[in-house]
Amino acid sequence: MGKMNNFLYAGKACGLKKNKDLDLGLMISKFPLRVSAVFTKNKVKAAPVVISKKNSKNIIKALIVNSGNANACNGKQGMEDALRVVKSLAKEAGIDESSVFTCSTGVIGERLNVSFIEHAIPDLLNSADEEGFDNFTKAIMTTDTFPKTVSKSFSINGSQYQIRGSAKGSGMIMPDMATMLAFIFTDLPIKKETADKMFKECVEASFNSITVDGDTSTNDTASFFYPASADTFIDLTGNDTESKHNYQIVKNALFEVCYELAKMIVIDGEGATKFIKVTVVNASTEAGAKKTALTIANSPLFKTMITGEDLNWGRIMAAVGRAGVPLKAENIDIYINGKIIVENSTASKKLTKDIEKTILSPKEIDVEIDLKSGNKKRSVLTCNLTHGYIDINASYRS
Amino acid sequence: MGKMNNFLYAGKACGLKKNKDLDLGLMISKFPLRVSAVFTKNKVKAAPVVISKKNSKNIIKALIVNSGNANACNGKQGMEDALRVVKSLAKEAGIDESSVFTCSTGVIGERLNVSFIEHAIPDLLNSADEEGFDNFTKAIMTTDTFPKTVSKSFSINGSQYQIRGSAKGSGMIMPDMATMLAFIFTDLPIKKETADKMFKECVEASFNSITVDGDTSTNDTASFFYPASADTFIDLTGNDTESKHNYQIVKNALFEVCYELAKMIVIDGEGATKFIKVTVVNASTEAGAKKTALTIANSPLFKTMITGEDLNWGRIMAAVGRAGVPLKAENIDIYINGKIIVENSTASKKLTKDIEKTILSPKEIDVEIDLKSGNKKRSVLTCNLTHGYIDINASYRS
Repeated sequence: MGKMNNFLYAGKACGLKKNKDLDLGLMISKFPLRVSAVFTKNKVKAAPVVISKKNSKNIIKALIVNSGNANACNGKQGMEDALRVVKSLAKEAGIDESSVFTCSTGVIGERLNVSFIEHAIPDLLNSADEEGFDNFTKAIMTTDTFPKTVSKSFSINGSQYQIRGSAKGSGMIMPDMATMLAFIFTDLPIKKETADKMFKECVEASFNSITVDGDTSTNDTASFFYPASADTFIDLTGNDTESKHNYQIVKNALFEVCYELAKMIVIDGEGATKFIKVTVVNASTEAGAKKTALTIANSPLFKTMITGEDLNWGRIMAAVGRAGVPLKAENIDIYINGKIIVENSTASKKLTKDIEKTILSPKEIDVEIDLKSGNKKRSVLTCNLTHGYIDINASYRS
Repeated sequence: MGKMNNFLYAGKACGLKKNKDLDLGLMISKFPLRVSAVFTKNKVKAAPVVISKKNSKNIIKALIVNSGNANACNGKQGMEDALRVVKSLAKEAGIDESSVFTCSTGVIGERLNVSFIEHAIPDLLNSADEEGFDNFTKAIMTTDTFPKTVSKSFSINGSQYQIRGSAKGSGMIMPDMATMLAFIFTDLPIKKETADKMFKECVEASFNSITVDGDTSTNDTASFFYPASADTFIDLTGNDTESKHNYQIVKNALFEVCYELAKMIVIDGEGATKFIKVTVVNASTEAGAKKTALTIANSPLFKTMITGEDLNWGRIMAAVGRAGVPLKAENIDIYINGKIIVENSTASKKLTKDIEKTILSPKEIDVEIDLKSGNKKRSVLTCNLTHGYIDINASYRS
């Protein structure tokens, strides 16, 4: 783990989850950190989102996350409760309240039982260590069926560094400049403005390009923590070749962590049995490519078609036409797992009965739409819609 | 049926549906008609949509509709096939090709078997009579579980008139200035420009305010047919009290027919077990009210909550916040079936355990969102999301 031992983690069961699963996660840093973060664009924001957005401008020393309760839509009480959590942690840890980053995830509109959290904080702080990352990751899960962590090593000027992250999904996934909960940590000191830019770009093509069900939560937050020590900054923004090279190394590692976590969230989408990548190529704008890919990815008829393994490709054409992006309606090609299905908006002559029967059998489905109207491209990751989604969501609170 | 005997109807099984259900419907008029119509806004349009859009400017003598095949995404071949259908009917009936209105509904991307239709046309014409309306309605059904017809009588200047309509749903329902297939007929002669305006307004608050799954088809068409005889026009556009009164009578009857058909489509939404009306009140704009209502109505988490009868109202708040409409996030009230659930964006103090347990039990759920930011209002009709939706759509073609 190298210098990642700046970061100490813990995860506990404090009682918010009725089944006694871990529900309270902590990261506390030996050294001052900075954070780059993107938050939900939902106009209804949970109290911890408001606090963390404010504190993300400051030096960060600790992160506290609870699952089992979103602390959203609890009005002034919700804000008071979230502040109490921050205050308790700050007091016990001997750090400034303004240096705490906090997140909550779970049911909306039920009051957070702060005393459960307060009660657990001393124990949480005592148990925090370099090995606590797995417990931290388990503590942030809700309907996730497996914990999601990724780590990458990279080398800059002969020194080894690491980026590692954990995330939770797995419904209400349709981020817009933000996402579910994702926490990413590195031991490389970076200037905040550099990291902000880099992280925003990585999020856009990862967490911000996935959808499970088109819903956006009130609590989505993706955050990237790194040492704040100005005396050890490595230049990542210079115009010299070395700076540019180093910037690319860090960005690649960060993007890989974001993308793999994003992919895990989709694979673990509520009830999902298939992973789907929808790519729109040769669009006239990147925004249009993304909008078209998202329209397909969010279509329940497309998602159920994948579940049924029934190549009713007209549903893809209907979604393309509905996306509201300028296109030549008679020019569209569709490829699935590399095989051409639709050519110039009609069934391809290469589409045999055999292909039709088996093309949707694999666990991973790659759909590519060629709009032939430009040179822009975007991918969106999603999953299929199954009975499992309905089972999970018809009884989420019980 | 009074003077509705201008209209002769028939429905036959011509072989497009593999199960030998009725799949070819005809209306032929003894007198020249005009039609007001709204079509899908999907950029991918089926061939019959293109033809009917063009012919809707002309005098109309007949309407031919097939189910079992959408004749969409079949390229030039699709257009040739649709024109062959029109030509055959025109020839057999001795009418002009330009006076035929045609629609198709069913699977996209499979070639229409025109010879089945051509073969059935003579028999269809022979059997057309005033009593054929029920067969016509059955012939336009796809995954609908029941035929949908409504009729209303009204009186103008002492004379009785009638409006009657039939429609088919029941998935891929998310109209945008258009809808599934709906055919409405009246024996009242109306000026085309008057009917166009009146019908557009009625469609906006009926067919255009429903959603089953957020998908929009390539074939959606709503149409309103009426006698074209200029010598018997009743003035509906004058500035005198009588004209205004008459206009309102006709519009009310037309709206009721549209609204009741729209409601039937939603009730018969694929897999639906509950009918849901989402009303947004006190919005700053009507468009914002509609956008918010549609965002809630299309949220799979909201729809599955209704299925589970589990009052997880945070999902409604999350959808309101995601709709992208300006609002005061701490001011929102939510009522369900008349009971207040959320007050100023937090759980209402009047929300008892008892209400929570039973409020979602009824078959009809009325959700009202008060945005307290203006005086505009819009309703959207929808249904819940169930296992049935997935069963139907995972195997639509087989």
